[in-house]
Amino acid sequence: MYEILKTINSPADVKKLNAEQLKTLAADIRDALFNRLTKIGGHCGPNFGIVEAEIAMHYVFDSPKDKFVFDVSHQSYPHKMMTGRKEGYIDDAHFSEDSGYTNPEESEHDLFNVGHTSTSISLATGLVKGRDLKGDNYNVIALIGDGSLSGGEALEALDFVGSDIHSNMIIVVNDNQQSIAEVHGGLYKNLTELRETKGKSQNNLFKALGLDYIYEENGNDIQSMIKVFQKVKDIDHPIVVHINTKKGKGFKLAEENREAWHWCMPFDKQTGQWKVSFGESYTSLTADYIMNKAKKDKDFVVITPAMPMTAGLSQDLRQQLGSQYVDVGIAEEHAVAMASGVAKAGGKPLLVTNATFIQRTYDQVSQDVCINNNPVTILLNYASFDGLTDVTHLGIFAISAFSNIPNLVMLAPTSREEYLNMLDWAVEQKEHPVMILMPGNAITERHADKDYSKINTFKVEQKGEKVAILALGDFYQRGEALAKEIKTKLGFTPTLINPRFASGLDENLLKDLEKDHQLVVTLEDGILDGGFGQKVATFYATSDMKVKNYGLKKEFYDRYNPQDLLRQLGMLPEQIIEDIKKLI
Amino acid sequence: MYEILKTINSPADVKKLNAEQLKTLAADIRDALFNRLTKIGGHCGPNFGIVEAEIAMHYVFDSPKDKFVFDVSHQSYPHKMMTGRKEGYIDDAHFSEDSGYTNPEESEHDLFNVGHTSTSISLATGLVKGRDLKGDNYNVIALIGDGSLSGGEALEALDFVGSDIHSNMIIVVNDNQQSIAEVHGGLYKNLTELRETKGKSQNNLFKALGLDYIYEENGNDIQSMIKVFQKVKDIDHPIVVHINTKKGKGFKLAEENREAWHWCMPFDKQTGQWKVSFGESYTSLTADYIMNKAKKDKDFVVITPAMPMTAGLSQDLRQQLGSQYVDVGIAEEHAVAMASGVAKAGGKPLLVTNATFIQRTYDQVSQDVCINNNPVTILLNYASFDGLTDVTHLGIFAISAFSNIPNLVMLAPTSREEYLNMLDWAVEQKEHPVMILMPGNAITERHADKDYSKINTFKVEQKGEKVAILALGDFYQRGEALAKEIKTKLGFTPTLINPRFASGLDENLLKDLEKDHQLVVTLEDGILDGGFGQKVATFYATSDMKVKNYGLKKEFYDRYNPQDLLRQLGMLPEQIIEDIKKLI
Repeated sequence: MYEILKTINSPADVKKLNAEQLKTLAADIRDALFNRLTKIGGHCGPNFGIVEAEIAMHYVFDSPKDKFVFDVSHQSYPHKMMTGRKEGYIDDAHFSEDSGYTNPEESEHDLFNVGHTSTSISLATGLVKGRDLKGDNYNVIALIGDGSLSGGEALEALDFVGSDIHSNMIIVVNDNQQSIAEVHGGLYKNLTELRETKGKSQNNLFKALGLDYIYEENGNDIQSMIKVFQKVKDIDHPIVVHINTKKGKGFKLAEENREAWHWCMPFDKQTGQWKVSFGESYTSLTADYIMNKAKKDKDFVVITPAMPMTAGLSQDLRQQLGSQYVDVGIAEEHAVAMASGVAKAGGKPLLVTNATFIQRTYDQVSQDVCINNNPVTILLNYASFDGLTDVTHLGIFAISAFSNIPNLVMLAPTSREEYLNMLDWAVEQKEHPVMILMPGNAITERHADKDYSKINTFKVEQKGEKVAILALGDFYQRGEALAKEIKTKLGFTPTLINPRFASGLDENLLKDLEKDHQLVVTLEDGILDGGFGQKVATFYATSDMKVKNYGLKKEFYDRYNPQDLLRQLGMLPEQIIEDIKKLI
Repeated sequence: MYEILKTINSPADVKKLNAEQLKTLAADIRDALFNRLTKIGGHCGPNFGIVEAEIAMHYVFDSPKDKFVFDVSHQSYPHKMMTGRKEGYIDDAHFSEDSGYTNPEESEHDLFNVGHTSTSISLATGLVKGRDLKGDNYNVIALIGDGSLSGGEALEALDFVGSDIHSNMIIVVNDNQQSIAEVHGGLYKNLTELRETKGKSQNNLFKALGLDYIYEENGNDIQSMIKVFQKVKDIDHPIVVHINTKKGKGFKLAEENREAWHWCMPFDKQTGQWKVSFGESYTSLTADYIMNKAKKDKDFVVITPAMPMTAGLSQDLRQQLGSQYVDVGIAEEHAVAMASGVAKAGGKPLLVTNATFIQRTYDQVSQDVCINNNPVTILLNYASFDGLTDVTHLGIFAISAFSNIPNLVMLAPTSREEYLNMLDWAVEQKEHPVMILMPGNAITERHADKDYSKINTFKVEQKGEKVAILALGDFYQRGEALAKEIKTKLGFTPTLINPRFASGLDENLLKDLEKDHQLVVTLEDGILDGGFGQKVATFYATSDMKVKNYGLKKEFYDRYNPQDLLRQLGMLPEQIIEDIKKLI
């Protein structure tokens, strides 16, 4: 097992191998991928497909002198194995040492932390510019593919390279005919045409943008890949190397169902059965809502910038939705502006994506949607510290980044009923752009209002005294637990409030609290800076009311244990009780 | 004067005109452009060039049934004149009624408030989708050009249209061979090739993206434009209409110097002399700094996403900078990621743009720059309530949007020396990404430190008692004035602090203030929500210190008088004094 891979401690060891050994290395790498992925999950199809290309990259180029920039970087596992990090794949005890994305803290062979798509070409142009300014001499290679090309940042960069870069730069377009779900966009039609003509079609997007171009059909053949890289190594101008690879190559199930195996949970290698099962969740509630709503209302349309599973929309459900579903591919900016147009034309758009990816659209949310006050509903999954914990995928910035945009109503539901009611209210109303934070915790049950048109009205769920707890969104249950603990430990009943709105204050209610409360405690699932609690603290800043905010620090946390983090932050009920004792 | 234009109250009146009258209308519109632009300034070249195309649009299509979406919308003046708003151009008393951009509150012929580029195609796809969902029947026309095509949002949308739109949609690409400064990007090479081959070249970006395409050489000839629009009206699929126009057409000076006349201040029609003159400003200081620094340091490079004049970089200065200057064109996302790459390769990148446009890059600043902690310096012009007052160009969100991104050091200089020292410190240091808010007021003189490596250390400029004033950035002078007023009116000397850092707190100093102060007043040039003052209020929220924040509300202000706004907000010194009296 891992006969060759075990001998690889750096790219220098790859260069020593003969053709047969390189093939064995590829097989070893795939075995190692199985070892890690079946046990802890991760990005699957993208890594199986790129094994040969990355072996050839290390065989031909000289990393770290030559610079590799991986787009999204979730297809960097083989690269990682060849740069001193194989233990993270072949030795279960070392899994946690490897981040799943490129990470300069792990290795000098990784240039950037990269988790959002479409950045590699821009980052690489920067390396080129820096290299040329300093008079250095090395190859800069960007590896992009897997749907990332449709992102605006990548297209801006391609356009720029086509006119303004005049020295060495190699853009490897890994064309595996698949983004996360289906690929979308005219450029994929062009890639297909180029594949079918073996790169010879006159109709060539890259050439139209002013770039040199070369096609390699056998992207999963190491010797072919070595040849094409040898051809472009040390080239004196930018070139696109379009390679044809098979997503999931070497893992039959992933080859056959490329969408399902883009990313995986731990699974059984033979059956493909995932070792976890999903019950009802806010995601499944979302899918149910969408399917019912679409049937009843022909003006309703769901837009996703790739990632349809974020809304629980499997291939089958998407087909049922027909023209009431639009996947724009990885093109978040376009998705948001398009939603604004749909609303303007009288449609009812619901845009769903992950909290971390909506960051791409700060300007579109502000300009295209909110200045125009068009009734677009944006639903964010993983808007929680307890969701994705990779530093590049944190959902903890959503409130801070978006709640301060004028006109945007940000809703933070706390139960099944509230979630569904808010969703339906948002889609139906015509007055406001609305952003909804999908709860990150398990479904809870509590009765909720149907109408949210009185913006910024908080709900008092329990009327008490001395201490008022404002527990926002999916931290509401923590507020509930805290309220009980206060009753038990401190002997009085605090007031418990469900703010519901993350983007503004119920000033009357807050004013009212001054009568019989000394302390307001806020709890929110996000960073404190720019968030909800700071608005509350500011409201009381000229009064005698004390305010204590609980939430996360302004930090790029990385792969933390959520419970440990809460303890570090002093957010466990017993810790908060100690604070309260000092403050009242 | 305005013989024909005077008769035009709606597009219906345009449709009645014969060929000769249409020509006169074009001349009238140009006279009206001169009337407004010579007196109050505005976007010049883009409007002179598009007169004939917009006349033809209104002649052929039926707005508001048919929907026009203008990109940036600064080239919508002729459209506005033909849709009931000619008085804003021919009658000086009515200038202020017209916003300079499309504005749905002004007219049903305007679909969106649009001031940032590259949005029209996405917005139009939304209209198409909404139309088709509802079974409506009208033409949707996006007018894009003038450099906007290089923006990621536009490229994402073009790609989307090329595969996923299968009904009527008309994309007019106004090719006037000029963005704001020179055009950049491979796509402009392709536009040139298409112009030179009268649209016949096989090498065609639009076709490569899967779009139908038609070329019209005579974009400044009304009858030619009418013909081409008649040809595509009611088309059953998307098509790109590539039109060749002359930026500045009909205004000789603007035809000859397209960059200088993209936008203008009030000017003399004969000589072109602007009626205002510019003395030394923070912008001119910036240009001086850049030129000196570039000479001394070959690792230093300036990047602008178009808008080089934002850094005071005239064509001549840009040429002197040579390879130490990169204009990426309108491609903000790419610019930021590229800067990160430059820093990683050991270069010293300074990125300059307007505060309103950096919004496009929230994600790139967070992911490409700050997670990687690369020492990129981003300098923002017009980061002030007193700069651009159009609702789409406000600089008042910069602190709120960016100061809460981890790792980013946001600096708010208050004097000539501090500005230049901060700029140089930021460019030279290797520890932090830095964003600098260029002051929006006149240059003031005060001695400043050279070193800012002790992050978040505030500077006590005057030690006093009872009240501490934290006056951030270009509101420092207001703080100074307030301190004097307190001394005079209230009889004691307050403490005056220059925070210098907008992204964090000097906790020791704030703690120290508790000894002999009862009230902290914060002043900042931006919205309060998510801003600096709220951090201060939060810091003191569990203490007895009172805090009063002064700044702007979370609102989309539009074309306000800055001094009136301050009064409305209760921010004049006498108003603040009244507050203070109540609070101490």
